[in-house]
Amino acid sequence: MPSRPIITLTTDFGDTDYFVGVMKGVILSIQPEALIVDLTHNIRPQDLFDGAFLIHQTCRYFPAQTIHCVVVDPGVGTARRPIVASAENQFFVAPDNGVLSLVLEEAAEIQVVHATATHYFRDDKTPTFQGRSIFAPLAAWISRGVKMESMGPPITDFIRLKSPQARQTESNKVRGAILKIDHFGNCITNIDPKLLPGFFNTPRPAFMFRVGNATIARIQSTFEEASSPEPFIFLGSTGCFEIGINHGSAAELLKLSRGMEIEVSW
Amino acid sequence: MPSRPIITLTTDFGDTDYFVGVMKGVILSIQPEALIVDLTHNIRPQDLFDGAFLIHQTCRYFPAQTIHCVVVDPGVGTARRPIVASAENQFFVAPDNGVLSLVLEEAAEIQVVHATATHYFRDDKTPTFQGRSIFAPLAAWISRGVKMESMGPPITDFIRLKSPQARQTESNKVRGAILKIDHFGNCITNIDPKLLPGFFNTPRPAFMFRVGNATIARIQSTFEEASSPEPFIFLGSTGCFEIGINHGSAAELLKLSRGMEIEVSW
Amino acid sequence: MPSRPIITLTTDFGDTDYFVGVMKGVILSIQPEALIVDLTHNIRPQDLFDGAFLIHQTCRYFPAQTIHCVVVDPGVGTARRPIVASAENQFFVAPDNGVLSLVLEEAAEIQVVHATATHYFRDDKTPTFQGRSIFAPLAAWISRGVKMESMGPPITDFIRLKSPQARQTESNKVRGAILKIDHFGNCITNIDPKLLPGFFNTPRPAFMFRVGNATIARIQSTFEEASSPEPFIFLGSTGCFEIGINHGSAAELLKLSRGMEIEVSW
Repeated sequence: MPSRPIITLTTDFGDTDYFVGVMKGVILSIQPEALIVDLTHNIRPQDLFDGAFLIHQTCRYFPAQTIHCVVVDPGVGTARRPIVASAENQFFVAPDNGVLSLVLEEAAEIQVVHATATHYFRDDKTPTFQGRSIFAPLAAWISRGVKMESMGPPITDFIRLKSPQARQTESNKVRGAILKIDHFGNCITNIDPKLLPGFFNTPRPAFMFRVGNATIARIQSTFEEASSPEPFIFLGSTGCFEIGINHGSAAELLKLSRGMEIEVSW
Repeated sequence: MPSRPIITLTTDFGDTDYFVGVMKGVILSIQPEALIVDLTHNIRPQDLFDGAFLIHQTCRYFPAQTIHCVVVDPGVGTARRPIVASAENQFFVAPDNGVLSLVLEEAAEIQVVHATATHYFRDDKTPTFQGRSIFAPLAAWISRGVKMESMGPPITDFIRLKSPQARQTESNKVRGAILKIDHFGNCITNIDPKLLPGFFNTPRPAFMFRVGNATIARIQSTFEEASSPEPFIFLGSTGCFEIGINHGSAAELLKLSRGMEIEVSW
Repeated sequence: MPSRPIITLTTDFGDTDYFVGVMKGVILSIQPEALIVDLTHNIRPQDLFDGAFLIHQTCRYFPAQTIHCVVVDPGVGTARRPIVASAENQFFVAPDNGVLSLVLEEAAEIQVVHATATHYFRDDKTPTFQGRSIFAPLAAWISRGVKMESMGPPITDFIRLKSPQARQTESNKVRGAILKIDHFGNCITNIDPKLLPGFFNTPRPAFMFRVGNATIARIQSTFEEASSPEPFIFLGSTGCFEIGINHGSAAELLKLSRGMEIEVSW
C-alpha cells in the first residue's frame, strides 16, 4: 500500500447525522495516515442501483490501490454478507447486495471474498450501523496491508443487480432507459452511440428519441449551441446519451424520472 | 501533537456559503499539516442540542489528540465566552453555550479554559463570524502544540444544557424523548434498554411504546425482518431505542419530531 | 510548490453525482500528495456571480501557493477558453466566463494565460465535463510545479462580470444591492460602511435602509442584542452591511432575494 493510502466513502447517510463522522473516526483510529475522500453521502436512501452507478462511474479515475468503501445497505444486520473485492487493481468494501455489480461485471479480473474474520470488525453490539462496525474497519485494515484473502473465503456467487441494458428491438429501433437524473436535471441514459448506425457520420442520419410524452430530434454537442429552451440530446460524460435543456432542468420540464424507457428510431 | 494533527469541523453553516471554506483556509494558514475532517455543516441552524448530540456521538471514535472545533453559535459577538476543553484525551473548541454539554458531562476527567488570550485570535473587526476569528485559529494553535492553559484561565461554570433524561415514572413505566430524527426518518430516543426490566431475557416481556398518536409493540433487531410497512422499535447505534419502518420514514408516517415524549410501559 | 500542495474545489455540481468524486480521482492520479479541500459544490447551478462571490470571499484566507479550481461553466464545450491565473501569490484554474472576476479585479498583480497546451488535458472525447478533462488536470499539474507560462499564451482580455457596485446617488443617499442570501437567511449587501458618513461616530447619525417593502433603521452589532423579532442591519463578515433577524430568516420574512436594490438615506 502507498504511504498515504486513499479510502473513498460512498454512502446514503446524508449530511446531517453522526454516521459519516463516525466512519471517518473509525478509519483514522486504525489508519492515521489514510486520505479519506468523500465521493458522496447522498446516494438515494437505500437505492442500490444509484450507489452502483456512482461508484462505477467514479472509481476508474482513482489511482491503483485506492480502497472504495460503499455503504448502501437496506439489509443491514441481516445475514447478507459483507464482502471485500479487488478489481482493476483497486479494492472495494461493501455489503453483498449488488451495490458493486456494475464495477464487478465490467472488470477484467476480479476477486471477491466473504469477510468472515470478525477480529477485523469492531464489537459494537448493535447491528444497524455496520458502516461503523464492519465496513470502515475492513477498509482501514486493507489500507494497512492486511490481505483480503485473510479476511474470509473467496466467493463467486455475490449478488448481481439486474442492471438495465440498452438493446436493439427492431431493425431501426433501440430501447434503453434513464439511469440517473443529475443535479442539473439532465437525464443520463444507458444508450451508447455505437448502437445507432452512422451516428458519427457526416451528414448524420436522422434519429428520433422518444421518452415519456416527449419526442426529441435535436442533437447538440454542448449546452450553449442554441439559445432556444428546447430539449436536446447530447453525448454525456459517461459515454452515453443524455437529455438536456439550456438553462433548465430537462427532467422537470419533461416530467422524466429514473427508470423510464427511452426509444430511439431511425 | 501528532505530525499530522486531526481537526474536525462541526457547524450549522450549511453547504452553500463561504463560511466553511474560510475556516479551512484559516486553519491551514496556521497549521499546514492539519488533516481537516468535516463531520457535518448541517447542524440545524442555531440548534445547540443538535450540535451537542452530534459531537457527543462522534468524538469517541476519533484517535487521542484529535481537536474538535464545534461552531453553533446563536450568541456570536456577545459576551458569551469562547472555551477550549480537554476530555478523554481529546480537545474541543467551541462557544460557551452548552454545545459541548453532552461531551463534558460524561467524560471522567475534563479541563475547561475561557480563551482570553486574544493574540491567538485573528483581528477581523466584525464580530459575527467567530468561526473565522476565534474558533478556527484556536483549534489550529492547539494543533501546533500551544497548551490550552496558556489560552486563558480555567473555569468550571461553563454552560450546561439541560438535556432530556429518560427516567422511570411509575413502577411499570419509563418516559423519555426523541432526541433526533435521522436522514432516513428513524427517530432516535434517549431510552436505554437497561431501563426496561428483562428486555434481554428470553422470552422477552411485552413492552408497549407510546409516542404521538402511535402505539408500537413490535421490536425488531434489523430492518429487513418484516416485509410489512408497520413501524417498529429497534436498538439503534447510539445504544438507545429508535423508531423505524422498513423502506420509509417513521417520522413522516407517524408525524414525529424532535422533543416529543415517548412512554414505555410493561 | 509545497510538499503537500493545497487544491481547493468550488463547483455547482451538487452533492449527489459522480462529478466531484471524478475530479478528486483525476487530481490524485496526477498528484497523489495533493490536499484537496472542498469549498462548496453548491454554487447555484450555472450562476457565475455566485461562484465569483464565494471564491473571492474565501481565497484570501488560504496560504500562498494554494491552487483554487473553480468550475461553474454554463458554456462548457463551446469555444470559451480555459484559463489559469495567478493573483496574490495563489493560483486559479477556471473557465474564462467571469467566475474569477472579483478575484482578478481586486488583486494588485495578476497574470492570466489561456490554457492551450492540450497535453496537460485528459483526452475524454465528450465535451460536457471539462472539470474532468481540463480543470482538474490543470490544477494538478500546477501543483506538480508546471509553470502556468508553459500552459498557454498570456491574455489580458479575459471576461469580466459586470459586478454591482454600491454608489452614492444623491448627497444623502447610497444605493447598493443584495449579493447573496446566506444559509441563515441573512442578506449580504455590497454597501461598505465607509460610504455612510459618520457611521462609526458616537452618537451615530440616523440611517434609514430601504429594501423591497421594508424600511429598517435598527442597527445592531450582534444577533442577540434584542429579543424582538424585528429585522436589523449589521456589519457582516465580508465587511459590508447585512440584513438579519434574530432566530429567523430575514430573506424569508421580508421576501428578499439576490440582486434586489437597497437604498440608504441619512
